[in-house]
Amino acid sequence: MAGNTFGTLFKLSTFGESHGVAIGGVLDGCPAGIELNLEAIQEDLDRRKPGQSAIVTQRKEPDTVEFYSGIFEGKTTGTPIGFAIHNTNQKSHDYSHIKDSYRPSHADYVYDQKYGFRDYRGGGRSSARETASRVVAGAIAKQFLGDMKINAYVSQVGELSLNKSYQELDFSLIESNPVRCPDTATAAKMEEYIKKIKKEGDTVGGVITCVIQNVPVGLGEPVFDKLHAELGKAMLSINAVKGFEYGSGFEGVKMKGSAHNDQFNTDGSTKTNHSGGIQGGISNGMDIYFNIAFKPVATVIQAYDTIDKEGNKVSTQGKGRHDPCVVPRAVPIVEAMAALVMADYTLLNRTIKL
Amino acid sequence: MAGNTFGTLFKLSTFGESHGVAIGGVLDGCPAGIELNLEAIQEDLDRRKPGQSAIVTQRKEPDTVEFYSGIFEGKTTGTPIGFAIHNTNQKSHDYSHIKDSYRPSHADYVYDQKYGFRDYRGGGRSSARETASRVVAGAIAKQFLGDMKINAYVSQVGELSLNKSYQELDFSLIESNPVRCPDTATAAKMEEYIKKIKKEGDTVGGVITCVIQNVPVGLGEPVFDKLHAELGKAMLSINAVKGFEYGSGFEGVKMKGSAHNDQFNTDGSTKTNHSGGIQGGISNGMDIYFNIAFKPVATVIQAYDTIDKEGNKVSTQGKGRHDPCVVPRAVPIVEAMAALVMADYTLLNRTIKL
Amino acid sequence: MAGNTFGTLFKLSTFGESHGVAIGGVLDGCPAGIELNLEAIQEDLDRRKPGQSAIVTQRKEPDTVEFYSGIFEGKTTGTPIGFAIHNTNQKSHDYSHIKDSYRPSHADYVYDQKYGFRDYRGGGRSSARETASRVVAGAIAKQFLGDMKINAYVSQVGELSLNKSYQELDFSLIESNPVRCPDTATAAKMEEYIKKIKKEGDTVGGVITCVIQNVPVGLGEPVFDKLHAELGKAMLSINAVKGFEYGSGFEGVKMKGSAHNDQFNTDGSTKTNHSGGIQGGISNGMDIYFNIAFKPVATVIQAYDTIDKEGNKVSTQGKGRHDPCVVPRAVPIVEAMAALVMADYTLLNRTIKL
Amino acid sequence: MAGNTFGTLFKLSTFGESHGVAIGGVLDGCPAGIELNLEAIQEDLDRRKPGQSAIVTQRKEPDTVEFYSGIFEGKTTGTPIGFAIHNTNQKSHDYSHIKDSYRPSHADYVYDQKYGFRDYRGGGRSSARETASRVVAGAIAKQFLGDMKINAYVSQVGELSLNKSYQELDFSLIESNPVRCPDTATAAKMEEYIKKIKKEGDTVGGVITCVIQNVPVGLGEPVFDKLHAELGKAMLSINAVKGFEYGSGFEGVKMKGSAHNDQFNTDGSTKTNHSGGIQGGISNGMDIYFNIAFKPVATVIQAYDTIDKEGNKVSTQGKGRHDPCVVPRAVPIVEAMAALVMADYTLLNRTIKL
Repeated sequence: MAGNTFGTLFKLSTFGESHGVAIGGVLDGCPAGIELNLEAIQEDLDRRKPGQSAIVTQRKEPDTVEFYSGIFEGKTTGTPIGFAIHNTNQKSHDYSHIKDSYRPSHADYVYDQKYGFRDYRGGGRSSARETASRVVAGAIAKQFLGDMKINAYVSQVGELSLNKSYQELDFSLIESNPVRCPDTATAAKMEEYIKKIKKEGDTVGGVITCVIQNVPVGLGEPVFDKLHAELGKAMLSINAVKGFEYGSGFEGVKMKGSAHNDQFNTDGSTKTNHSGGIQGGISNGMDIYFNIAFKPVATVIQAYDTIDKEGNKVSTQGKGRHDPCVVPRAVPIVEAMAALVMADYTLLNRTIKL
Repeated sequence: MAGNTFGTLFKLSTFGESHGVAIGGVLDGCPAGIELNLEAIQEDLDRRKPGQSAIVTQRKEPDTVEFYSGIFEGKTTGTPIGFAIHNTNQKSHDYSHIKDSYRPSHADYVYDQKYGFRDYRGGGRSSARETASRVVAGAIAKQFLGDMKINAYVSQVGELSLNKSYQELDFSLIESNPVRCPDTATAAKMEEYIKKIKKEGDTVGGVITCVIQNVPVGLGEPVFDKLHAELGKAMLSINAVKGFEYGSGFEGVKMKGSAHNDQFNTDGSTKTNHSGGIQGGISNGMDIYFNIAFKPVATVIQAYDTIDKEGNKVSTQGKGRHDPCVVPRAVPIVEAMAALVMADYTLLNRTIKL
Repeated sequence: MAGNTFGTLFKLSTFGESHGVAIGGVLDGCPAGIELNLEAIQEDLDRRKPGQSAIVTQRKEPDTVEFYSGIFEGKTTGTPIGFAIHNTNQKSHDYSHIKDSYRPSHADYVYDQKYGFRDYRGGGRSSARETASRVVAGAIAKQFLGDMKINAYVSQVGELSLNKSYQELDFSLIESNPVRCPDTATAAKMEEYIKKIKKEGDTVGGVITCVIQNVPVGLGEPVFDKLHAELGKAMLSINAVKGFEYGSGFEGVKMKGSAHNDQFNTDGSTKTNHSGGIQGGISNGMDIYFNIAFKPVATVIQAYDTIDKEGNKVSTQGKGRHDPCVVPRAVPIVEAMAALVMADYTLLNRTIKL
Repeated sequence: MAGNTFGTLFKLSTFGESHGVAIGGVLDGCPAGIELNLEAIQEDLDRRKPGQSAIVTQRKEPDTVEFYSGIFEGKTTGTPIGFAIHNTNQKSHDYSHIKDSYRPSHADYVYDQKYGFRDYRGGGRSSARETASRVVAGAIAKQFLGDMKINAYVSQVGELSLNKSYQELDFSLIESNPVRCPDTATAAKMEEYIKKIKKEGDTVGGVITCVIQNVPVGLGEPVFDKLHAELGKAMLSINAVKGFEYGSGFEGVKMKGSAHNDQFNTDGSTKTNHSGGIQGGISNGMDIYFNIAFKPVATVIQAYDTIDKEGNKVSTQGKGRHDPCVVPRAVPIVEAMAALVMADYTLLNRTIKL
């Protein structure tokens, strides 16, 4: 499994299991001379961390990042940035009940099949805990991107959908509520609903929308490494993601070309933006926006039947402190992956012209 | 732009513009000893080629592939397979009207911005003509995959949706109609609709569903190179694709975890398959299925306004022989990209255990 | 075998066997806007091609390259450059005697072992014929490199060594003799010696020295992708190469640090250049120079004993038209690989600073 | 600078500067199920560490490795192995004298030029301290390689050369003396010489020979990723290395093909081994052996002239605790890099046949 590296020039390699000593990574290729705001990095980690509100898992993990290299006198040096987050609150006993059986719709079964055995103390490498390393690297990428602004927010929870385009929203409200939905009224409904689901010991899915603004023209490496293809892969690599669409997306298939085409203004911008800021895999300078579908997390706090390694039926009971809905905590992860892609493609684009 | 290579071990690099001398590629890493059925390769090319029916572009391109290396006495040798398809019918004059202006929602503008100038004879590298090279490589990948079966079909055209799950369909009917929809009644409606759109000189989008069967357990390289993440990137790299969802996809977000979880049978298979055959980025042995959204192609045979390189407004008229709806011809392209991913991940999976 | 791609951003993938239909490649990542001198490319091919003088193989191969893509109106477009050289004079029967036995110190045996079977019509993929594709790509790289000048020459044939530093030589004399040694007197001795070896039906090794001038400071990607490490790999990937040394090389180990250290001039240049133009894997602006050792080619036109596939002893006779000494024809190959590395590292270096 | 990753499937990414918080790395792609002997890993680290004898630097660094992930119940899990070695004895003040000037033949100048500034507390990323991370990963690779045996030893120090082939040596004597030369008499002379050099405050170069035994047939990925090309790159990436030769190397160029060719035995082995165990870039089952040239380290404890950032001449005095000769401590580094290459190519070779 050498699938733990992301990016070509701005390159992140991560390590770590949910119940190991530490998680972390190596960010290689980050250009030299970036003044790093370490507080901003910790802030993004805090937006992802457990226990931040009543609608997320109540696990307590400080998630404090230690930097080991690549930073000198507050600036990046161009050498790899090594970092780690130690696991302080492993509570293995919470997981002992799953040692010998496979949780439905978890990765337990496939890891056992693929590797021959697994770290049975929780999700191991398949746990979303790994994404904390992505948030660290993404927060650094954001600081490299300068004017480019990346905002993600929750646009759907279960059946509750925010029926507004991103242009109608005030991104400054995203952090004003625990759901991270910038529409206060909808956010309240979503919060209510998540609490209800939690009481039931159940979970529910959601959708996150991400918007990237102030994008220069020309980012993207056709034909295989189109900008939206890499963004799609980045988002689909996040735990529990089931779908990705950008611009007009799945709704766009119903339109006619004459209506879907984005007419030019004389400055090269377009009157509409069904394209989602990308043409032929290359950014055209308009806003990039996309939606990401998250399934309901598999861990339900209910009794369920499953099988053990020998294929015997076993009845068991979901335990532990889990998220009833993953999207509020996934917002900074989406932003981080978007930032990593945009940073990598910014560097790739420097190599194109004589 | 070094974005023209796909895959890590089963690796395709393509070249070629719509109006160049030839398109083609190098397929490296194809294992030695595969008995190649060259007819099957040409058949897939013929399924993609123009002029095959009344509802696709009437351009005439034989699309005959020549193999230059990597095959000896009917078998792959383990050395790179070089191949080319010569462009026989370039009709550049069809495109002369676009030399100095940018077609809305085409890649003309971004290519000029990114590279400083472009091959203005049509789409150049951004033309879907490039995908013929993918079909050649994908057809070889299919022959490596043995029992694994990959079937793609058209499940939506504009508003016309095939409201059946793939289990209700007979894949042997896919090639029975020009739309490549395995439900005869729906196919007829779709064909009618596409003809109407064509008369209007307009275009419409569609959805292709792809199903991969007889998949071994264990394919996928978490955390970044999850199987569905790579499938998503592969599909999003196809011209005109705007979205990808697998398993329960965007609909699944509305479900509760207790209902969404796939309960195990004692043999490790699952009673339901909301997961879409993939858990934690690794195949679990169930069928893999996903949907791909295609936008309406941008070339409409109507008058439209646009701008030239200097940013002056120009009025022009769409010309040429184009597809009113891209999905019927995109079916073999989707299958090819799926085959390339499955072949690459099959090889990667050989390296995992002691 | 996915080992047929070289480079990260300026990326060459090659295909082709000595007795297949054609050899060629895809050069991806070549920046847009380079005015290509196609004659210069063919000239480098002609320097490598058989039959050019009395001391090289008398095979007749025109080695005419056809370009398929990536060039428009005489300039690179930034899209992949596909090219092929058709094999016109295969003379398979010359090789029929080796179908069932393994030539000593050839790759016949290992290819059979690795891939299960092989194209027995000559060297197949292991033939130096493949290097013609490298020369095409390298000739393009040279045109991207502008002021950077790459000169290779023969500095040793068998025991005959050119005991002059490159500073004492006139590179304009390299092409003045068939050996490609810029010292006329030594060249004459070498030519004589190669003719004698040829009469004996034997072969001999040699050394090529390569010098890269006008190198900007800063090329190189420590710690693993140091500039000299990549140059070394590039040279070692050429057929028959057994060794690589740069700067003071193997002789330098005898020196003391106080004598080996290169003292600075006030402009950052150094008074001596034992470093060979590279410090810590990064170019320092001084000339880069290195030596490459080539073994005597294995094909001798003499009787020899060997084994067949079943391990039976067989006596046979070397046939065909082969090079008594490979270095004269290898000079343009060395230059080509050096140019590919310098072009790739020039692009990589653009991504380093904010 | 994304040049800090080595390997395709068995992939090491390292981080860390000589005076940062810690050095370490991520080893990705290590197959699951390997019983790890952690003591053996620490033993290799101890062979590399400072202060181990009178002829190496007297710096005190315990070099204790901490593993963060990828190991469970004593076995590798197939997930990335994250590890770190904290820097305990930084002694920055030893280096304060170099803050504003460039040490001749060090990387100070090129790092400043390439990145715009540098961590001036010693070598930073260009320090050989980084190689401790390679030794950790290489020690794990050795445990994956099973029967394959890798032995490196010092074969030359300055003018003192060990004039014996590796077959004449007893590898069990390598660790019997501080020089790591398996010939006791020669080792004693070398030790004496290194002590003399040290007294002079000077340094001297050396050669390390490495032998790989019990190699399976078939490792190597032509045409660019030939086994010896990757071994060469691996060795050239080690600090202070100036040359690499394998098999007959530079001496072999003087031989005639008829004498250089390795005649077959009926079992496929060869009577001689001028090839060095590799044909056409693929292992042939015979021993692989190669030599690596190390220059005299640049840090001399003498007065010297140099320049500062503004290009002014400055006179200064070499200080600190440095190695008079680098080869004794470089032996485990050479073994580690060889092990990483052999592990990666073992995995790559699993993907070749149907």
